[in-house]
Amino acid sequence: MSKSSFENTLGWTIDDWLSFHKKHDYESSLSLLKQLLRSQKVAPIDCAWISLVDESYLESQWLLQSARDNRSQLPLLGVPIAVKDNIDVKNCLTTAGCPSFAYNPISDSTVVRLLKNAGAIILGKTNLDQFATGLVGTRSPYGKTPCVFNQDYVSGGSSAGSASVVARGIVPLALGTDTAGSGRVPAALNNIIGLKPTRGIVSCNGVVPACKSLDCVSIFSLNLKDAETCLRTIANPDYENDEYSRSLPSNPKRKFDHKLNIAIPKNIPNFGDDKNSFLFEDAVNVLKEIDANIVELDFQPLLDLAECLYNGPWVVERYLATKEFLERNPPLDSLDPTVLSIIESAKKFNACDVFKSEYKRKQILQKIKNIFKDIDVLCVPTCPLNPTFKEVEQEPIKVNSIQGTWTNFVNLADLSAIAIPAGFRNDGLPNGITLISRKFNDYALLELANRYLNYRTPFSVKAFGIFTDELKNKDKKKYELYGPEVTTHDSITVAVVGAHLKGFALNWQLDKVNATFIKSSKTAKKYELYALPKAGPVLKPGLRRIGNAKGTKIELELYSIPLETFGIFMSMIPEPLGIGSVELENGEWVKSFICEEIGYIQEGSKNISSYGGYKNYMTYLKEKESVKIF
Amino acid sequence: MSKSSFENTLGWTIDDWLSFHKKHDYESSLSLLKQLLRSQKVAPIDCAWISLVDESYLESQWLLQSARDNRSQLPLLGVPIAVKDNIDVKNCLTTAGCPSFAYNPISDSTVVRLLKNAGAIILGKTNLDQFATGLVGTRSPYGKTPCVFNQDYVSGGSSAGSASVVARGIVPLALGTDTAGSGRVPAALNNIIGLKPTRGIVSCNGVVPACKSLDCVSIFSLNLKDAETCLRTIANPDYENDEYSRSLPSNPKRKFDHKLNIAIPKNIPNFGDDKNSFLFEDAVNVLKEIDANIVELDFQPLLDLAECLYNGPWVVERYLATKEFLERNPPLDSLDPTVLSIIESAKKFNACDVFKSEYKRKQILQKIKNIFKDIDVLCVPTCPLNPTFKEVEQEPIKVNSIQGTWTNFVNLADLSAIAIPAGFRNDGLPNGITLISRKFNDYALLELANRYLNYRTPFSVKAFGIFTDELKNKDKKKYELYGPEVTTHDSITVAVVGAHLKGFALNWQLDKVNATFIKSSKTAKKYELYALPKAGPVLKPGLRRIGNAKGTKIELELYSIPLETFGIFMSMIPEPLGIGSVELENGEWVKSFICEEIGYIQEGSKNISSYGGYKNYMTYLKEKESVKIF
Repeated sequence: MSKSSFENTLGWTIDDWLSFHKKHDYESSLSLLKQLLRSQKVAPIDCAWISLVDESYLESQWLLQSARDNRSQLPLLGVPIAVKDNIDVKNCLTTAGCPSFAYNPISDSTVVRLLKNAGAIILGKTNLDQFATGLVGTRSPYGKTPCVFNQDYVSGGSSAGSASVVARGIVPLALGTDTAGSGRVPAALNNIIGLKPTRGIVSCNGVVPACKSLDCVSIFSLNLKDAETCLRTIANPDYENDEYSRSLPSNPKRKFDHKLNIAIPKNIPNFGDDKNSFLFEDAVNVLKEIDANIVELDFQPLLDLAECLYNGPWVVERYLATKEFLERNPPLDSLDPTVLSIIESAKKFNACDVFKSEYKRKQILQKIKNIFKDIDVLCVPTCPLNPTFKEVEQEPIKVNSIQGTWTNFVNLADLSAIAIPAGFRNDGLPNGITLISRKFNDYALLELANRYLNYRTPFSVKAFGIFTDELKNKDKKKYELYGPEVTTHDSITVAVVGAHLKGFALNWQLDKVNATFIKSSKTAKKYELYALPKAGPVLKPGLRRIGNAKGTKIELELYSIPLETFGIFMSMIPEPLGIGSVELENGEWVKSFICEEIGYIQEGSKNISSYGGYKNYMTYLKEKESVKIF
Repeated sequence: MSKSSFENTLGWTIDDWLSFHKKHDYESSLSLLKQLLRSQKVAPIDCAWISLVDESYLESQWLLQSARDNRSQLPLLGVPIAVKDNIDVKNCLTTAGCPSFAYNPISDSTVVRLLKNAGAIILGKTNLDQFATGLVGTRSPYGKTPCVFNQDYVSGGSSAGSASVVARGIVPLALGTDTAGSGRVPAALNNIIGLKPTRGIVSCNGVVPACKSLDCVSIFSLNLKDAETCLRTIANPDYENDEYSRSLPSNPKRKFDHKLNIAIPKNIPNFGDDKNSFLFEDAVNVLKEIDANIVELDFQPLLDLAECLYNGPWVVERYLATKEFLERNPPLDSLDPTVLSIIESAKKFNACDVFKSEYKRKQILQKIKNIFKDIDVLCVPTCPLNPTFKEVEQEPIKVNSIQGTWTNFVNLADLSAIAIPAGFRNDGLPNGITLISRKFNDYALLELANRYLNYRTPFSVKAFGIFTDELKNKDKKKYELYGPEVTTHDSITVAVVGAHLKGFALNWQLDKVNATFIKSSKTAKKYELYALPKAGPVLKPGLRRIGNAKGTKIELELYSIPLETFGIFMSMIPEPLGIGSVELENGEWVKSFICEEIGYIQEGSKNISSYGGYKNYMTYLKEKESVKIF
């Protein structure tokens, strides 16, 4: 028997799985995956799982993946993934948390197909509030999923099982869905990441609809990097199969400004809880520490919008999604009574109500547009309460409704959101905050969350779920996210040679225009570099092309600047500098800083070509300076 | 009595009215406006008018306008305008074509307020298919408005009266509304311009809703320039008062490429008509003549969308808009029976139908998005038929439905459209074509329509309405439109000194990036201009800054390039040229073409500064060339 079968995979990140598979052969990897599968039990033993794949399906998945030519490039090769049981996986029943609803899907949902394309191994299907109707995780005939920190408390829902198996480190990634908070609330109550992408950028083809016009597939993970890897994998247009599919812009925002404006609610009702407000205050302080400008804001328009969802006709969409099924008179014990009563409440709405509510929504959206004029991000508590099973049982509708306070409005307002941990209360339970921004700012939210978490829990890539103490400081490095893939056809590659270089005074201008670093390079051996006389606080160099063979290679960095923000970059460039073209050492021409002749021939300009570039010259100046000081 | 009262104002454009008022005093202008007002009669004598303002209101409007400090700058000073009677004008009843619905609005609609701000004088309210429900112009207790060319034929609707009074030249401008074609069909049947702006860019505040989520205020005029002036005046965000209000982007598209792709329907059913197909073929030939690339396209997705509107639950919006009124049991003779039956058909739809239809719409929109990937503009017949009153009476629903074939889908698909004349059939009746494009392409459609009309009816600014023969060739000039206003804060001002100048080989690149010419100017007296050695078909110059007092002033042109397209412009600029900054003769610095030193010092470069600029040098070269030929 190979050594692999003794590995404890609990808490493994994507990287841990990738590196195991890299170092081991087909059989060892298969054994490890099987070991993991065998160690799991489905409900009622472990309420988080409704079903697990059978061993033969696990084996055939791994056989397929390991036979692929490009397997070494696959970002999720051999990574076990859990899928909420309202998302189709071929060969697995889809129950949506309702045994009598179960069907055998003829194909994978688009999102599962994309995960498999990326190398993922589906391990099983997870429990949920029936038909994804709930934020508690208790509305399921398959059992009530508990919080991973205390069995008396709910996991939150509706993606209860997915959050639970990630928080316990069984899988590094799980898919959820999120219509009104189902992907965020259980993330908060289980101390993990819950990313709710912008509506439509992840296909809902093959997902049992809750409210079709609002549904999103969401991502649970132990760290941001894994969430990002998943997002990059599954965010893909699917116009033919999903009427709400849309693509991310080719250059989505990568980063908010260093000093961004974050709005928090002026009033945060505590709904009888006396512990979570401290967590939120603490989180806001961390945001201040990372230089965010915190603004208190009247959230009434957003709360009004949330009200639309709870008391408005969007529930008709839930009714529509289950109508045919319910008309077949399924056995009552397969239906959750609370869910059923909610779905049946749809009958009170008529066609006029739908249009009236849509008008109201549009009216509120006008106000929200106004809010976002000066604000980059909203920060809210993810959910007000950490409810016990008993509390939910006593007031199933009320507790649920309170839990949606800060999540409900997000999809109705077409926003992106990420729920992240905010630490633990004195009773040992976690809660979280959610960062919310305009549509398509998903990657920028990830980057901001990373700034926050790097500050809060530095030197750890997975200080979440149940692994807070155990694994803290295991990985002694901060990590940077990749951001979205660089698209070159909607961008301009620009060479920078001076203060825009990494680590220098004007590099922020590249962030400002959503640029991506590509690589360091050099000019062809045909250039000179001059230090121009200082006209402001920043020393700027000017590049001079002097023709064949007489010049030097000058060090530069290449950035990809989106076409649509290039004008903003241009407007920040003062004379005698400009943007023209430069020949690289490999003979390629790219856009680049250039300099008018009058710049480098003027009194006070200094030929610094012998330093090979701006960076070396600046180092030289610094050293000279420090010598002086001694 | 002043001479003015004998003027025949029929057929006057905005310019005619402005120039009259400029040359005459307060009293003469008032007399002329009064003369116009007195010459008009309301329904049933002239079915186009439901009401005219009383003389005292006309007088007070003119008093107010002529007392304004900025009156000489007002684009519509003293221009009489007709308003469809579902749009509020203070001091005038709003009837929406239903006497018992009439109310006295407490304020002007936003659009009327904006027109008045621009100097307009409201002359009266025009007849319509009741509650703007119809495309025939016959569904009104105030009478059936006839086509201005033949009393036996319908005017088209619902904006019947507005089209009629413009086509007869009574007013140069009239407001309509357009939900499913009401602003386009009557334009076609009366040989005038019918501009249906992108949804939301003109406020619907103070407009009686038809289908609130689809309604647009539309513009009728005798020529494109007047339509453009009106659009510039009324396209203004109104977020507080209109939940569907949105603003045009700060740099809306000004122009389609010279060789644009225009799609026409592969199959055009004639619905029994044998005359209109010739007009359409003729129009398509004109589009080919102006260099459009015509593509035949399967319009099925668009027709499916139209079907959604006719047989789908959007009629519930009409019901919602009239529900309260109808519940008061208004006298039956004040209601049009066809309109009533349509509105009551809303009762058959339930809340599920609304969501189901919205899903279907979204699904079709995915296909339409695909259509517009390679297509700039759709060109369709505006309406299939020129129906007689008799035909409409016999089949009121069917004829109406046929007429909407090419107009119905436009607002459901969130597109912009302009209906323009396509000439006359051998029975003396006109019909038209409609150019359709993506949202916010309103100005580009106007520009394209202008290319079409300048080719079809050159040397005339108003060859439309009933004035075809009479006024043709009166104004012996083609005219150019202004396009949207130039916004400088979202643009970069760039000086061009070479082949990008007006009339030269690369000027198209400025069109391509949606740039606007600002003015001609010169550099400070510190520059030299060099003709660079020709590297391709185009001779390019390079600008060299040589410092104080030794240089020349070089002629240049300033263009405003939108920030978001600047990157595209940049990507078209080859070495040794680039974009930097230039000092103008007034000391101002703007972005500008610059040139690397290596460009102008190379073998074959020629100092052409003594010519003062590229244009003069090119003239010199041409003359030299022609001298050689002789």
